[in-house]
Amino acid sequence: MADFDALKEKVENKLVSVFENLTMPAEIKDAMYYSISIGGKRIRPVLLLMFASLNGAYSETALDFAAAIEMIHTYSLIHDDLPAMDNDDLRRGKPSNHKVFGEAMAILAGDGLLSLAVQIMAQRSIHDHEAILAMNDIIEGAGAFGMVSGQAMDIMTERAQAGYSIECIDKAKTGALIKAACLAGARFSSFSDEEIGFVSDFADNLGIAFQITDDILDVIGSTELLGKNTGSDEKNEKETYVTYYGLSGAQKKAEESIDKALYSLSLLNKNTDTIKQLTLDVLKRNH
Amino acid sequence: MADFDALKEKVENKLVSVFENLTMPAEIKDAMYYSISIGGKRIRPVLLLMFASLNGAYSETALDFAAAIEMIHTYSLIHDDLPAMDNDDLRRGKPSNHKVFGEAMAILAGDGLLSLAVQIMAQRSIHDHEAILAMNDIIEGAGAFGMVSGQAMDIMTERAQAGYSIECIDKAKTGALIKAACLAGARFSSFSDEEIGFVSDFADNLGIAFQITDDILDVIGSTELLGKNTGSDEKNEKETYVTYYGLSGAQKKAEESIDKALYSLSLLNKNTDTIKQLTLDVLKRNH
Repeated sequence: MADFDALKEKVENKLVSVFENLTMPAEIKDAMYYSISIGGKRIRPVLLLMFASLNGAYSETALDFAAAIEMIHTYSLIHDDLPAMDNDDLRRGKPSNHKVFGEAMAILAGDGLLSLAVQIMAQRSIHDHEAILAMNDIIEGAGAFGMVSGQAMDIMTERAQAGYSIECIDKAKTGALIKAACLAGARFSSFSDEEIGFVSDFADNLGIAFQITDDILDVIGSTELLGKNTGSDEKNEKETYVTYYGLSGAQKKAEESIDKALYSLSLLNKNTDTIKQLTLDVLKRNH
Repeated sequence: MADFDALKEKVENKLVSVFENLTMPAEIKDAMYYSISIGGKRIRPVLLLMFASLNGAYSETALDFAAAIEMIHTYSLIHDDLPAMDNDDLRRGKPSNHKVFGEAMAILAGDGLLSLAVQIMAQRSIHDHEAILAMNDIIEGAGAFGMVSGQAMDIMTERAQAGYSIECIDKAKTGALIKAACLAGARFSSFSDEEIGFVSDFADNLGIAFQITDDILDVIGSTELLGKNTGSDEKNEKETYVTYYGLSGAQKKAEESIDKALYSLSLLNKNTDTIKQLTLDVLKRNH
């Protein structure tokens, strides 16, 4: 199976070609494309493609879905950065969307990216049953019970208008879409219900490890490498895995989650080497 | 076929039952439900059900889609009312979403409603081919080339950063989702490609008439009946059908569009009495 960087390049080429073929007003298209084009780890689309490759080469439809899930992730970042939300000026080392295009266009760029992602998935689903299952996984992770609820719980807790636990917030805000990427990929590999269960357990633990390392990086990472301001959690007096478990406690918890993830992965009895590598690399993240 | 008010009641009951069964954080659920529950003409879902009834009783799936399209319309109003967009404090005679729940929760409530609508449609599409076709119609109308582009063109033109024509803006901003409602309904009646073409022509003209009467009401309507502030177009020096064609010219153009719509409707050779009545009532709107 292709390694991370090769799959990342496939995803980025697909994103470019999607936007090359879009006929829509330049102002909104530019705003949508800006946040897509300024980079990112692309971990969700790559995970989708890795799982879609476990029973043979991934399909063109899977690649479309990989692009779609990255659009959904990007829309959530654009809206999260808005002044009314987390008010972040910097994203991936560049001015955030509303700093370049204004708040109105940033709101619409987010709406447009979510809509475009759904449109791509819905078109592919007309004659493809695996696609419609994958679309259901993705929209469940992205949606009212997943990512959107996570962001709502995060904001309400930060503003002391509610008191959701960090596990509860992160599972919805970050974990749900990472899980959706893995599950959607597994659909394209025509996995059985039992195998989907193993993927689900894997993804839950990967999501936790990913969020813990995010929190650790906010303390010990550099703004330069991260492309966003560090120390923001402390500044906002935000409860994180680090404030809750301490730095070494958080690190230990991340390692435990990775162990659990790798165990679930092993139950698939497939050649999952590249997924294993990606999982281990989460612990070594510096951005 | 049931008349407008009976169908409207069915839609409102369905919306209530969807939210009764939602398990999600109260803060975001309340914000989503607030804008759904404060009323509205419900013209899009009723149109969907009317077209879904032309070859027999509409299905439960069609009713779910009717609820979904109203959620999409509502999300667009919440985002349009935001201070960064049209900055409207009043909607349907009540404080707009961000005045009650704050901007952050209003942005998320919009995102949540769009996501929930997509989730409902995607679930129904797993075993229903008409549903996936209807979902494609709706997301095309709502999406990056439809409603979202329309709002972007409107805002850019209003702020003199672009100069899109009123026809072009309204076709995307208002027309696309009205058209999507009619087409989606027609899918559930298993219409042929030719019949879908007649529905499409009908809907294009209905959308134009609807937007023209909106512009006329902004001049001659009352804030009390409309539930939103009138005179806002004049205040914003906005080009409308009235500023462009004059009041009587705009009225004439609305009548012509209705005539064209009714002609296309007649080509279907179905009992379309209630749709005809709804179409004629557009000219008599006072809210």
